[in-house]
Amino acid sequence: MFAGLSAFPLTPFAEGKPDEAAFLRLLSRLTEAKVDSLGVLGSTGSYAYLTRTQRRRIATLAVEHADSIPVMICVGAVSTDEVLALAEDAQQAGAAALLLPPLGYQALKEEEVFTLYETVTRHASVPICIYDNPGSTHFTFSDALLGRIAELPGVGSVKIPGVPAEQSAANDRLMQLRGTLPASVSIGVSGDASAGNGLIAGCDGWYSVCGGLFPRVAKAMTEAATAGNYASVRAQSDRLQPLWALFRQHGGSFRVISAAAGLLGLTERDCLPRPLLPLSAADCRAIADVLAALELT
Amino acid sequence: MFAGLSAFPLTPFAEGKPDEAAFLRLLSRLTEAKVDSLGVLGSTGSYAYLTRTQRRRIATLAVEHADSIPVMICVGAVSTDEVLALAEDAQQAGAAALLLPPLGYQALKEEEVFTLYETVTRHASVPICIYDNPGSTHFTFSDALLGRIAELPGVGSVKIPGVPAEQSAANDRLMQLRGTLPASVSIGVSGDASAGNGLIAGCDGWYSVCGGLFPRVAKAMTEAATAGNYASVRAQSDRLQPLWALFRQHGGSFRVISAAAGLLGLTERDCLPRPLLPLSAADCRAIADVLAALELT
Repeated sequence: MFAGLSAFPLTPFAEGKPDEAAFLRLLSRLTEAKVDSLGVLGSTGSYAYLTRTQRRRIATLAVEHADSIPVMICVGAVSTDEVLALAEDAQQAGAAALLLPPLGYQALKEEEVFTLYETVTRHASVPICIYDNPGSTHFTFSDALLGRIAELPGVGSVKIPGVPAEQSAANDRLMQLRGTLPASVSIGVSGDASAGNGLIAGCDGWYSVCGGLFPRVAKAMTEAATAGNYASVRAQSDRLQPLWALFRQHGGSFRVISAAAGLLGLTERDCLPRPLLPLSAADCRAIADVLAALELT
Repeated sequence: MFAGLSAFPLTPFAEGKPDEAAFLRLLSRLTEAKVDSLGVLGSTGSYAYLTRTQRRRIATLAVEHADSIPVMICVGAVSTDEVLALAEDAQQAGAAALLLPPLGYQALKEEEVFTLYETVTRHASVPICIYDNPGSTHFTFSDALLGRIAELPGVGSVKIPGVPAEQSAANDRLMQLRGTLPASVSIGVSGDASAGNGLIAGCDGWYSVCGGLFPRVAKAMTEAATAGNYASVRAQSDRLQPLWALFRQHGGSFRVISAAAGLLGLTERDCLPRPLLPLSAADCRAIADVLAALELT
């Protein structure tokens, strides 16, 4: 479940509601490419913009159309009770794993985050992936806290936010993390621009936004890493530099991939939940140019 | 509605649910002290930890027990649709005004925040208070954006996060804000430690966490400001320095006021929504000592 390419699809919107037909179109690209797992309702899947009912519906649709590929469902919410309710919904929908970020409103303390994971692992009957995403949650895990949570029975993986751009520093970071985490807990890299570095440094998998729209590209890179062909991983990641540059320009992958899905005709051109607004026509043209140059259309 | 002391009560919890009896105990202190308005379900009122149903219930209870004091209800949510639904609920409950923070998940752009306020003011039939609270929302308003939103019909006030600790800098900040905002839009200060400075600098009111538990103390300070008795405002705020020091120590007023409400026997000792955990026994003893020294018990 927690190794290889985990593809994180968008939950596209149309007219203020989740666009189920478009979601299934995105999903079918992922099942056709036989990604190793699906990460549904993550940040990219706009979990924070959906009601509990909408999240249950998307989780159910995902499992029904996953073609037996294991589905991980994000159950992030500010309140612990809401997390538990979402976890129950996700498990009833058939989730193979739960992705849990420490979403705060009042700034969270380490003990509070530990207790959240302790509570959810105690209630859940499928494994939990720790979602370390300080850019969105504004909570920064210490390695000591990650290690403590990772030792809870039921924790299967850590989704890390990225690794340093310099390969030897990325290798050092992975070594440090491995020393902190039980061997049974996998490490998956996210932050697509640093995924190549993370895979070369020995991450078990890639929790990938890029892979949620361009699964074949992300799968080839992940498989090269599994085969130990690091020169190929590096070359493939380098080739995608213009895409990573767009992610940097737009504050992350989410807005770019949302625009790209629209440009590819898989979703409405404007597929974002409000209050988010689509990128400008000029930005979309620049994205279209990069997709064409990288043969991603 | 948007001047004088606006008291922001906690929404206390007991056994994982809003503790309605304790909420009404807190409310009765505020109506007895005849505060000028109530700010219910703000950050202090734990809006982010409650379901829509719970928020509707607390809003209804607040208006029913407000003794004709106008009630402002916070309608913050990540999704615009959810904000609109909460605004509808709050108005049906009898809210006199809505408090709206730009709560994000994906980092919000200025145009997105403007459009959010534009949408909500278009739908709402009661005035809106702009909730500028970068510490919790992680969105920082530019003065230009505040000015643009404040010009929307239906905007009545801005709740600012605080003013500089140095009085002349606080005065400059207020002058700058007054130059940006239409004269019809009031400015209320929050960040209790800087409320004295804000009131002396000419804020129209105080959106007060301290006033949500200690309304007489906060009302005396606000009334001294209205009477132009700035030496008294300064003296009263200085007297409360040990309380402001506790707020600084605990990352804001919320955890301290929650502990204080428990120490006063108005709520359970542990009245926080999970994942938040109560302060340690030693921290509570230090808070009890300050309350006793300040004759706040």
